[in-house]
Amino acid sequence: MSVTTRLSTKIGLSVPIVQAPMAGGPSSQELVAACSAAGALGSFGFAYTQPEDMKKQAAWVRAKTDRPFGINLFTAPLPAEIDAGAQRGALDAVAAFYKELGLPAPEAVKAPYAPDLQAQLDAVEAIRPRVFTVHLSDLPEQRIRKLRAKNILVGGSATCVAEAQRLESLGFDFVIAQGGEAGGHRGSYLRDPYQSLTGTLALTRLIARAVKLPVVAAGGIMDGAGVAGALALGAQLAQLGTAFLPCPESGAPQVHKDLLLKATEDTTRITEKFSGKPARGLANRFIDEMAAKRAPQLAFPVQNSVTGKLRQASAKAGKGDFVSLWAGQAAPLARALPAAALIAKLEAETVESIQKLKGMVQ
Amino acid sequence: MSVTTRLSTKIGLSVPIVQAPMAGGPSSQELVAACSAAGALGSFGFAYTQPEDMKKQAAWVRAKTDRPFGINLFTAPLPAEIDAGAQRGALDAVAAFYKELGLPAPEAVKAPYAPDLQAQLDAVEAIRPRVFTVHLSDLPEQRIRKLRAKNILVGGSATCVAEAQRLESLGFDFVIAQGGEAGGHRGSYLRDPYQSLTGTLALTRLIARAVKLPVVAAGGIMDGAGVAGALALGAQLAQLGTAFLPCPESGAPQVHKDLLLKATEDTTRITEKFSGKPARGLANRFIDEMAAKRAPQLAFPVQNSVTGKLRQASAKAGKGDFVSLWAGQAAPLARALPAAALIAKLEAETVESIQKLKGMVQ
Repeated sequence: MSVTTRLSTKIGLSVPIVQAPMAGGPSSQELVAACSAAGALGSFGFAYTQPEDMKKQAAWVRAKTDRPFGINLFTAPLPAEIDAGAQRGALDAVAAFYKELGLPAPEAVKAPYAPDLQAQLDAVEAIRPRVFTVHLSDLPEQRIRKLRAKNILVGGSATCVAEAQRLESLGFDFVIAQGGEAGGHRGSYLRDPYQSLTGTLALTRLIARAVKLPVVAAGGIMDGAGVAGALALGAQLAQLGTAFLPCPESGAPQVHKDLLLKATEDTTRITEKFSGKPARGLANRFIDEMAAKRAPQLAFPVQNSVTGKLRQASAKAGKGDFVSLWAGQAAPLARALPAAALIAKLEAETVESIQKLKGMVQ
Repeated sequence: MSVTTRLSTKIGLSVPIVQAPMAGGPSSQELVAACSAAGALGSFGFAYTQPEDMKKQAAWVRAKTDRPFGINLFTAPLPAEIDAGAQRGALDAVAAFYKELGLPAPEAVKAPYAPDLQAQLDAVEAIRPRVFTVHLSDLPEQRIRKLRAKNILVGGSATCVAEAQRLESLGFDFVIAQGGEAGGHRGSYLRDPYQSLTGTLALTRLIARAVKLPVVAAGGIMDGAGVAGALALGAQLAQLGTAFLPCPESGAPQVHKDLLLKATEDTTRITEKFSGKPARGLANRFIDEMAAKRAPQLAFPVQNSVTGKLRQASAKAGKGDFVSLWAGQAAPLARALPAAALIAKLEAETVESIQKLKGMVQ
């Protein structure tokens, strides 16, 4: 037995599940290919990826499977040139951590701070994935039309009703309701992110009732009961990130996987100290100590460069202290399964939950 | 068609819905009677109610309906005698608001700060409601045994896995997973309440997988899709508070009802400034200004007395500025319906959502 919705059928999925794009490594080509081949929507988080590499990875997936996949980019505007004094303050705030790991002092960051967004968007048009989604902002209407003209379904994240309504007015195909439970970066761009932490259950209902667009629910979904819950709430797809992090195909550092699998309680925190924008991850020394000393940070995405070598060295040393351990609030439900096995289990559990619900109605 | 679960059958409900206890007025005897008569679990929030009045109100409901109802008490320990200097600071912090409303300056608060909990618990044993729940803490095992011996089902709130496991180890009959979306007081008592804001979707799954007790989901549930979502997530009942606030039977001030019905976006905040413990309500001048000036407050429940006359006068004047406008994050979905009509609608929507889900499985 399988579960289908209008949107899952339109995309060409056999399970109503999106493997969330997770920029910075976790959503590797191996994970995307495995998820798509298993009937879910494998998705690249290409925010930090150069156009040529985007094309290579997409081609790699296409060589493995002809099933649809998705690409996600961050569309937030880049900050102006960073002031030297501010840069000094941000580097000083992390210097002791670099020293502790035996690294040379962190170096001043120079522009460009991120790949060129227009070139990345052009690469998306050239790749023509079945689905393209944006995070941290919206997209100009003209670009949306161009993408849609190439038979790409275009989606965007909303953390409040206003953002969902904006996506609808711009001509997006669907909206991702990113609930407060979600791991990684908060997609907020119209309201204060800290005032847009509406839980997934509430947000999915608020958005489903405020717009006509199909809704994808994201945040805290880790098992089939969660998927069934999302569908009951009116979502047409459930987007899961944390659930896929421990997969062998995921590019998350081993220590990230290990700490997720050890979690027994929601210990996540929201921090801006890794990247410059608020994101949810497992509490660790970096998050706690940077918060305690109210350390300064540079604007997104420049802060990523301030912490980059620290995160890599900490991961390489097998220590989670300074790694951005992105995770949603239901992280304790993470399972160490290959992607295909996880998707098969999620599908079976979803069917089981729906059957159970059916049995409650007389 | 009706929806039943093991717990709804055990309690004797015809719909798997709990009208959340809402201390301080909203869960009036009229609301409790109307909800119970309609097949849901009407519930008294008796935290601030004297034992004799508890008995009178329970008898009033029994004269209206023979359906089961519930009683809830706050079981947090009371603070020691309040220091005169601290008291002065807390009174000074609200004095300008009193003056603005033309009220005499707020007066020093004297013990006792709340009804005697042991006498309230004795009243519960005398009343013998079908269900008794606690909030803000647990209960001694001996008291749980006495209550259960009288055929009362005993439940408690949990905002994290540890609290749910504690309730299970103490012999509670069921656990209420109070997700971060929930309006009113956070039930946290083992962990920092601000680190226990796990969303309802995630928390329901975390708790359902951590304990064998039946789970009641609370927080952000406002319509039948929300109820179906909660059941899909493994809950056996959905507890709704905010949804019942605008009912004509609810004792919430008219301005509270009006502001709920006007909400279009989640504007709730968590504040300790009304009562001394963190609780979620619609943002208003009191919450914003007390937060902005980092105003001091007295311990729960003493702060209630500091703000009591202010809240009453503000409500009486039809101004929401200084009223504790408790509300969950899905407040914009509130509907102004009589309790029985709302429950009938919730039931029909729940069935519809389950039928829709059923249609997704092939």
